[in-house]
Amino acid sequence: MHLPDAVDTLISLAREGDMRALARLISVVENDGTQARQVVERLFPHTGRAHIVGITGAPGTGKSTLVNAMARVYRQRGHRVGIIAIDPTSPFSGGALLGDRVRMRDLVGDPGVFIRSMATRGSLGGLAHATDDVVLILDAMGYERILIETVGVGQAEVDIAASAHTVIVVEAPGLGDDVQAIKAGVLEIADIFVVNKADREGADRTFLALQTMLGLGPRRVQHHGRTMTVHEEAPAPDRAWTPPILKTVATRGEGVDAVVDAVEQHREHLRTTHEGQRREEIRIRRELYRILQDALLSRLMERLPPSSLDEVIQQVTSRSVDPYTAAQQLIARAETQPVTR
Amino acid sequence: MHLPDAVDTLISLAREGDMRALARLISVVENDGTQARQVVERLFPHTGRAHIVGITGAPGTGKSTLVNAMARVYRQRGHRVGIIAIDPTSPFSGGALLGDRVRMRDLVGDPGVFIRSMATRGSLGGLAHATDDVVLILDAMGYERILIETVGVGQAEVDIAASAHTVIVVEAPGLGDDVQAIKAGVLEIADIFVVNKADREGADRTFLALQTMLGLGPRRVQHHGRTMTVHEEAPAPDRAWTPPILKTVATRGEGVDAVVDAVEQHREHLRTTHEGQRREEIRIRRELYRILQDALLSRLMERLPPSSLDEVIQQVTSRSVDPYTAAQQLIARAETQPVTR
Repeated sequence: MHLPDAVDTLISLAREGDMRALARLISVVENDGTQARQVVERLFPHTGRAHIVGITGAPGTGKSTLVNAMARVYRQRGHRVGIIAIDPTSPFSGGALLGDRVRMRDLVGDPGVFIRSMATRGSLGGLAHATDDVVLILDAMGYERILIETVGVGQAEVDIAASAHTVIVVEAPGLGDDVQAIKAGVLEIADIFVVNKADREGADRTFLALQTMLGLGPRRVQHHGRTMTVHEEAPAPDRAWTPPILKTVATRGEGVDAVVDAVEQHREHLRTTHEGQRREEIRIRRELYRILQDALLSRLMERLPPSSLDEVIQQVTSRSVDPYTAAQQLIARAETQPVTR
Repeated sequence: MHLPDAVDTLISLAREGDMRALARLISVVENDGTQARQVVERLFPHTGRAHIVGITGAPGTGKSTLVNAMARVYRQRGHRVGIIAIDPTSPFSGGALLGDRVRMRDLVGDPGVFIRSMATRGSLGGLAHATDDVVLILDAMGYERILIETVGVGQAEVDIAASAHTVIVVEAPGLGDDVQAIKAGVLEIADIFVVNKADREGADRTFLALQTMLGLGPRRVQHHGRTMTVHEEAPAPDRAWTPPILKTVATRGEGVDAVVDAVEQHREHLRTTHEGQRREEIRIRRELYRILQDALLSRLMERLPPSSLDEVIQQVTSRSVDPYTAAQQLIARAETQPVTR
C-alpha cells in the first residue's frame, strides 16, 4: 500500500469532477517530468473504454461546428464527451470568429464536456505524443466519447485522426474543388463521410463525386490498405464496413443525429469484428515505438559527456563527418563509457 | 582506393546531368536500405553549398505559382534550381488543375531544374527525414537554390519550411480572414512575407494587417524565438533582419524579381552574421537526433526475439502493463541478451 501523494490527490480530485485538477493532470503529463510516468502508470489500467473519433477535413468545411453539434447530441444521449482540437482555425483553439465562440458557449459550462486545444507547433515530443496523453487521461476519467478535430492537411494531423477508432472525413461544397479529400489523400482513411453545408449550392455535386469514387453496387474499395469487396445484399456476420455518406447543416444541427448514429454503428462493427482489436494494436505499437525511441535517446545522452554532442554537431556542420557515421560513433562511445550523470 | 560500384556509377551519371540516375539515387536513399548510407556518406562532403528556401502558406495563396515563377527568375540569373513540393494541392505533386500544369510546362523540360514531389503521408521515417535526404542529394549535385513548398498547415509541414535557410510566408486576400499566418502560428518563422494575388480586392488590407503586426518605427519583434529590436536607421554591422512585405501577382510574374532579390539579401545577411551558422546547427541537430533514434530502435529490435515485441503489444492492449513500464522491460531485456540475429 502506498501513501497518497500529489499525483494521487490530483487523480482523486479529477475523478470527483474537479475540472482544474483534470487540467493540471494534463499539464503534468505534457511537461514530461518524473511525475508524468506516475500519472500514466496509475491511469493506464483504467483506460481502453473510451471510443475515439477523429474528425478531419480541409479548412472551411465546418469541422468545428460539426464537432460542437455532435458533442451536444452525445450529451443529450447521456454520454460524457472530451473534445481535443488540433486545428489552428478551430474555435476550440481560439482561432475563430466571435460567431463560432457564441455557438460553443453552451458546451463550455457543461461539466460533462471537457475541451482541450493543442498547439500544432512546438509541442514537446510531437503532436501525436501529446494527443495520446490527453486521450489517455480523458479515457481514464470516464469520458466515453473523445472527439479529436484535426485539420485535414498535414502529415501529423491526418495521422492522428487516422489512428482514432472511427474516422470522419468532412467535405463541403464550394471550396474550389469537387472533393478535397482526393487531393489530400485522406479518402482511404474515412469510415464515415460527411458533406457539411449541405444547404449550399454544389452540395449534391460533392455528394455525387464521393458516391462515384466509392462505386455502386457490389464493389471493391481500398480500406485501410486492404482491398475488400462490398456487397449490397444481406451482410455476412464478419462483413466489411461500407463508409456511409451523410449530409449535414451543422450550424442548424441538421443531420447530426444521423452522424452520431453512424459512429455508434461503426463502434459496434469494430466490437463484433477483428477490426477493433487490429486498430487498437496499431495505436499501441505506434505509442510504444515513440516511448522506446525517447527512452533510448535519453539513455544515450546520459552516458555521454554533455560536450560531446556539441562537438559532433560542429564536425557535421563543417562537413568533416557525415551524420550517419557521427551517430554510429556516438553510440559506440556511449557503450564503452560508464554512466556519467 | 575502392572499385566503382553501383552507387558510384549512379553518382557519376547524376553528376553528368542524367536526370534518371538522379531520380534513382533519391529512390535508393528513400528506400533506406544498405546502399542508402553509402549514398549519404559519399555525397555529404559535397553538401552545404545550396541555399534552401522554404515557401509556406495556406491553401489558395498561390504558393505553387510563386515557386514556379521564382524558379524561372533563378534560371534567368543562371542558377540551377531544385523544387521539392510537400503540398497535396501543389501542381508539382499532381494535385492541381490543368491550368497550373500548363504554367509549369517550361520548367519540366529544363535540365537546370529538378522537381520532386513528396507524399505527405506514409513516407518511411517521416516527412522531415525524406525531405532532408532529397535536399542532401540535390545540394551535392550542384543545385544552388532549393525551393521547398509546404502547405502552411500541419506540424511537420511548417517545421520543414521553418528549418530552411530563408522562410517565405505567402498570404493572399480573400481567404476569409485578414491574415492566415496569425491563425496558423507561422508568423514568427517568416523572413520574407509575400502578399500574392496583389491585384485582387483586399490585397491592401492584407498588406496593412501584416505591417501593423510587424509594427512601425523602432520596434521589437519575435524572430525565431528571440526578441530583437529593429531600427529603421542605418543598420549595425551585425544587425537584425527586418522581414520585408512584398506584393506579387505570381501568375503574371509581377514582383517576383523583388522576392528573389529579398531571398538573396537574406542569404547575404545569414553569411555576414552568426544567424546562418546557428540555423545550420539547428538543422544538423534535428537530423542527428532522428538518425540516432532510428539507429537505437533498430539495435534494440535486433537484440530481442521477434516474438517478444508482439507479446508486449498484446499485454499493453489488454491493459495488463502500461506502455512506459513495457518499454523499460524491453530495454532491460535487450541489454542482458546477446545479439540474436
